[in-house]
Amino acid sequence: MLRILTAGESHGPACVTIIEGMPAGVRVRVEDIDQDLKHRHSDSGRGGRGLIEEDKAEILSGIRYGKTLGSPITLIVRNLDFANWQDEMSIEETEKPAAKVTRPRPGHADLAGALKYGQDDIRNISERASARETAGRVMAGAVIRQLLLEFGISVASHTVQIGEVRLTRRYSDFKEVAKVFETDPDIRCIDRESSQKMKQAILEAGARKDTLGGVVEVIATGVPVGLGSVMHYDRRLDGRTAQALMSIPSVKAVEIGNAIQGAAMFGSEFQDQIAYKGKRFTRQSNNMGGIEGGMSNGEDIVCRVYHKPISTLGNPAKTVDITTHQPAPATAERSDICAVPRAGVISEAMLAFALGQAMTEKFGGDHIDEMKRNFNSYIKAQP
Amino acid sequence: MLRILTAGESHGPACVTIIEGMPAGVRVRVEDIDQDLKHRHSDSGRGGRGLIEEDKAEILSGIRYGKTLGSPITLIVRNLDFANWQDEMSIEETEKPAAKVTRPRPGHADLAGALKYGQDDIRNISERASARETAGRVMAGAVIRQLLLEFGISVASHTVQIGEVRLTRRYSDFKEVAKVFETDPDIRCIDRESSQKMKQAILEAGARKDTLGGVVEVIATGVPVGLGSVMHYDRRLDGRTAQALMSIPSVKAVEIGNAIQGAAMFGSEFQDQIAYKGKRFTRQSNNMGGIEGGMSNGEDIVCRVYHKPISTLGNPAKTVDITTHQPAPATAERSDICAVPRAGVISEAMLAFALGQAMTEKFGGDHIDEMKRNFNSYIKAQP
Amino acid sequence: MLRILTAGESHGPACVTIIEGMPAGVRVRVEDIDQDLKHRHSDSGRGGRGLIEEDKAEILSGIRYGKTLGSPITLIVRNLDFANWQDEMSIEETEKPAAKVTRPRPGHADLAGALKYGQDDIRNISERASARETAGRVMAGAVIRQLLLEFGISVASHTVQIGEVRLTRRYSDFKEVAKVFETDPDIRCIDRESSQKMKQAILEAGARKDTLGGVVEVIATGVPVGLGSVMHYDRRLDGRTAQALMSIPSVKAVEIGNAIQGAAMFGSEFQDQIAYKGKRFTRQSNNMGGIEGGMSNGEDIVCRVYHKPISTLGNPAKTVDITTHQPAPATAERSDICAVPRAGVISEAMLAFALGQAMTEKFGGDHIDEMKRNFNSYIKAQP
Amino acid sequence: MLRILTAGESHGPACVTIIEGMPAGVRVRVEDIDQDLKHRHSDSGRGGRGLIEEDKAEILSGIRYGKTLGSPITLIVRNLDFANWQDEMSIEETEKPAAKVTRPRPGHADLAGALKYGQDDIRNISERASARETAGRVMAGAVIRQLLLEFGISVASHTVQIGEVRLTRRYSDFKEVAKVFETDPDIRCIDRESSQKMKQAILEAGARKDTLGGVVEVIATGVPVGLGSVMHYDRRLDGRTAQALMSIPSVKAVEIGNAIQGAAMFGSEFQDQIAYKGKRFTRQSNNMGGIEGGMSNGEDIVCRVYHKPISTLGNPAKTVDITTHQPAPATAERSDICAVPRAGVISEAMLAFALGQAMTEKFGGDHIDEMKRNFNSYIKAQP
Repeated sequence: MLRILTAGESHGPACVTIIEGMPAGVRVRVEDIDQDLKHRHSDSGRGGRGLIEEDKAEILSGIRYGKTLGSPITLIVRNLDFANWQDEMSIEETEKPAAKVTRPRPGHADLAGALKYGQDDIRNISERASARETAGRVMAGAVIRQLLLEFGISVASHTVQIGEVRLTRRYSDFKEVAKVFETDPDIRCIDRESSQKMKQAILEAGARKDTLGGVVEVIATGVPVGLGSVMHYDRRLDGRTAQALMSIPSVKAVEIGNAIQGAAMFGSEFQDQIAYKGKRFTRQSNNMGGIEGGMSNGEDIVCRVYHKPISTLGNPAKTVDITTHQPAPATAERSDICAVPRAGVISEAMLAFALGQAMTEKFGGDHIDEMKRNFNSYIKAQP
Repeated sequence: MLRILTAGESHGPACVTIIEGMPAGVRVRVEDIDQDLKHRHSDSGRGGRGLIEEDKAEILSGIRYGKTLGSPITLIVRNLDFANWQDEMSIEETEKPAAKVTRPRPGHADLAGALKYGQDDIRNISERASARETAGRVMAGAVIRQLLLEFGISVASHTVQIGEVRLTRRYSDFKEVAKVFETDPDIRCIDRESSQKMKQAILEAGARKDTLGGVVEVIATGVPVGLGSVMHYDRRLDGRTAQALMSIPSVKAVEIGNAIQGAAMFGSEFQDQIAYKGKRFTRQSNNMGGIEGGMSNGEDIVCRVYHKPISTLGNPAKTVDITTHQPAPATAERSDICAVPRAGVISEAMLAFALGQAMTEKFGGDHIDEMKRNFNSYIKAQP
Repeated sequence: MLRILTAGESHGPACVTIIEGMPAGVRVRVEDIDQDLKHRHSDSGRGGRGLIEEDKAEILSGIRYGKTLGSPITLIVRNLDFANWQDEMSIEETEKPAAKVTRPRPGHADLAGALKYGQDDIRNISERASARETAGRVMAGAVIRQLLLEFGISVASHTVQIGEVRLTRRYSDFKEVAKVFETDPDIRCIDRESSQKMKQAILEAGARKDTLGGVVEVIATGVPVGLGSVMHYDRRLDGRTAQALMSIPSVKAVEIGNAIQGAAMFGSEFQDQIAYKGKRFTRQSNNMGGIEGGMSNGEDIVCRVYHKPISTLGNPAKTVDITTHQPAPATAERSDICAVPRAGVISEAMLAFALGQAMTEKFGGDHIDEMKRNFNSYIKAQP
Repeated sequence: MLRILTAGESHGPACVTIIEGMPAGVRVRVEDIDQDLKHRHSDSGRGGRGLIEEDKAEILSGIRYGKTLGSPITLIVRNLDFANWQDEMSIEETEKPAAKVTRPRPGHADLAGALKYGQDDIRNISERASARETAGRVMAGAVIRQLLLEFGISVASHTVQIGEVRLTRRYSDFKEVAKVFETDPDIRCIDRESSQKMKQAILEAGARKDTLGGVVEVIATGVPVGLGSVMHYDRRLDGRTAQALMSIPSVKAVEIGNAIQGAAMFGSEFQDQIAYKGKRFTRQSNNMGGIEGGMSNGEDIVCRVYHKPISTLGNPAKTVDITTHQPAPATAERSDICAVPRAGVISEAMLAFALGQAMTEKFGGDHIDEMKRNFNSYIKAQP
């Protein structure tokens, strides 16, 4: 049982994550966390906005001498901008509260959140609804992928669509995807030509003061057979993975394997025939995206994550003031043109979390050495 | 906190469901459950196989005088075929066990399940992995939708794609969808012409001894603003809905609203502008599919559920015997051509469950009258 | 993650239990379940009331050829008396409902339940609040102890107090306790003289039309070091054990080890000094009751479970009618004099459940062979 | 659903708590948290050890303008001593690790923890096992009691036994208990004479270099009827309260109401007869301790929490070195003589948490105003 709680308002003092249930003995370095935070932060979807300083994580508990203790791990990243928001986001009661935000932006949590939580100031919702919240998830993901790496499981992602520009080929090899942050830091596309078109699309949308969505593909390789379970619906790895990925802000669809094309195919075309080679069962194709019967089947787990275009617009949408009920332009907040490239690392974090939970459930173990013994004896026992 | 456990092997004595956490005072009739079981059972995807007798539910606990007690509800449906399977599925140890099943079918839980659970007889996996398991979910769904109906929330579904045949228009009105089982019991498509093409596609696939997948659209109407939450990722309604729907056997993608098209649209096109009419906030469009910021926004919740084609084929796939490692044709099991039409009611059950959980969390209440008071006072308090 | 849902009204059709999360390959026989049901059923606390027929369990899922499949296990025991209660407990709406029960019995769920669930007929509460509910727990416990036995863990209990009569010595040996149902089926006390006094106390209370409580001691032996965890408060084995045992109807205190005396002792007297003998760490005493720092320490786990006297009395208590608010005698229901002797097996079931959860969390594993490999390698790795 | 994760090593940088699921709009001040931290910190059980500086909490998220936002609340208290422990507790790998601790103290998590987590340095266990961990719980408790206060629910505690000295009377009135920190900051006993004897017992034990345990009584007043539930065993308030309290370090028994005496009483003596006065149901006595049938019954909830004597001794216990297996004196750590007086506020925090969970489950609501509407309409609807 691996549990995570994340906390933090967008312009509050800090983002904080507690991870509970990590086995002891896993090597974790603050640099690993900072690298994932960097991937979340910088790309060309920001449309030329100057970069603010980089996020730097601090570890407050759960790690000693570079290794996990098995106790809860606290990760914190200070919001450097908080200094400028102390009045607006004061923890203490104040006599001069900031002006209320009352014009909800379509596509955001603003309206539903204000009605649900009985708030007449949308800032009380939007501060938590901001994409800043994902910094907490990325920190957790960075730690959990260290656990996965101990078992040879790696997670990577790449951009496969921006607006109408689609990557037209499949990835050939996991390594190609794993290095995309180095080969194409801006767009994170494995194909140079597609990347340039995507970049162009972002620039054009920016020029129109408009925004774009797109699709990220996230892949896990080295996953053993048998994570998740077919025995009860809420243990299935497909369902848990879908929850993890769909919970990312702006994600509206999750596809495992070749699902959308597959819905139009014949069964005889779609199935991944089974062979036995090199002392393991293998497949000729991976239309199932590495999950069969709600369990990992040993092939790469491949999910596509569909992002709607960002809702905040340079040309504000029409909305209604929640107090007066009068039509008004939506509150304009500074915003990016396209969040897709840097959303990859968030998908990686969420997939890592789903896999980390499934790994600790299946292999138990309170220390990484024990968990590895259990893992190895399982692998060895397979026919 | 609404909890469900389902149980039962495909050819075992019975499918059983316990629902824990229902408020007291909700009217539930066994006929409501039997009707949903019927929807799960019969359609034309079976390709002319004679219908077996209909499933009939029995209520063993949690209901008195036609109303829930607040105690756990037990629902059971006997497998009428069990009489023929008593030896093969004997609960007791037997001296003459049936021959082991050793040739895993691609696309099923067979191989991953046998390796995970250390079984050398695939029947020990496939009995639970069978679509029969969804009878337990449908029974639960039938009860939970009675709860939702108390608040004016209805759930319905229709077939929007079979193989390459797509319904080319959107539903105009929830009622049109809600009556599809009467208007088109075989395919459950709201458009007569599309329905005929879909039926034709199934017949052709059947003639080829092949199978087809497709897409179900499931819709909830009357959902109040504010189910789910933006405050923590695992409370989001989009994530929970995705888990519920993706956990259905053969489902490989879940789309909320207009996600897949939306990934290629501009933000200015995609957003659902906000207006105020008839004392409530309304939208001009519903690209978000009724969920914004992880919360219901009062519009219809619209999800599309993508099914891969059924894996069991008249012309068995290539596989490998798990004991000998020799190539072999996959075990042939009698199977349908297309499971999509009757999968609709399973999607309805899973969406009802996700909504039922969110409703009981938000409105608490141990008796339906209390829950309604809480609900009404929330609605009334909205600006 | 081992989950249990139990269901069933006292005079309804059946008690039902679903156990989800059991590893595959565990041998389970219906006779094992029936024996625990028998222990729950018969003792001398019933004060001479004729025994009704014995409960017989039926297995409806999760087991094939005498072994668990890893799928959910359904256990059912029919209420033979239901035939006489069909009108009073009709599942369907009825035109002639039975007279409402409106006079709540102190010490029962009657009043709090009626107010919480908004019921004006106390039967809608008391049917589930009845001790009959524990049949579902005992069935679950009987299955889970088969899992524990695979690891050499046994659970047993004995009566250590009835009213003012206390067993004055500690158990000398686990086996002495384990056979108490054979040596003293009526009182289940390991000391003949104490047993006779206890029996006498019950007879005297019965003659006064009064009731008695008492104390059960429940013991688990063979428990490995390291179940539960000190790392987060809700993982501690002491807390989970306390929840499991305190949730038994009529239990009002739970003591682990020598806690109550220990609160008055010096630290130098209380501590269980550590030695090393026969290749394992041992203790000179067991004041801690086998749990240290929220984890099992390898010694017997010893808990004492304090039962209040049964609340239903031959001479009914004073109460108030919930509709008229007028004073009235409490509803008289046929009842036992003392529930303590046969409460032992319920404590065993609940302790087995807490241990079974902790075992599956620590050792993972989907098949008993895998779980044993993990267990053995853990034991072997200890210094 | 109210969730808490706590984190932090005893000599690490900080103790951290995240509370997830608090309704919005609850007034929380950092002073409230600091006051509870102060109660945890100072009393006379420390036997004259100079007080270190007081703990000061910082709020990092979830609160704006003095009120909760409904988002996760982060509370942090820095360990001022960390400056002196930077090498010993370095987060980063170090070339000069501190000497390993290898002599486990009986009564602590040391031995079971080292074996469970595969550690050869007991510090990797004891840092989290320390009572310092309870600072995280107390911070959470301080926030949750602000929620309870909105509904008129207060929690307080007092010392009823130290070693062999017992308070010989029951509390007469909740207020008497609530002010015990002011009237008797050292021992927190409501009776002056008993307090002096308790203090004397601590001094004498200190002079012997020994330690003492004792008993805390924790009380909640103003609790509405109907928290928890009789309908499923793991929803019962008695079980959840027992888990919460038993999970406190050094607690070995939990008693609700008059359980231990009650086990020796007749049913006719024990039961709390029901009357109706002042438009509510009342009781003549409170032997049940405010919980009946697993639900609150409107009377004060009264629990007694039994603490074993502290295990760390001036005269170290006999133990065995975990690496050499040779007998050795247990590691001596500076320690208190008696932890009971200041354990009261920890019991208060844990009881507040159990009640806060039950309140949010029953009354739902995302804003305190909504939750109050639901609460008031429930109270008003009672017969």
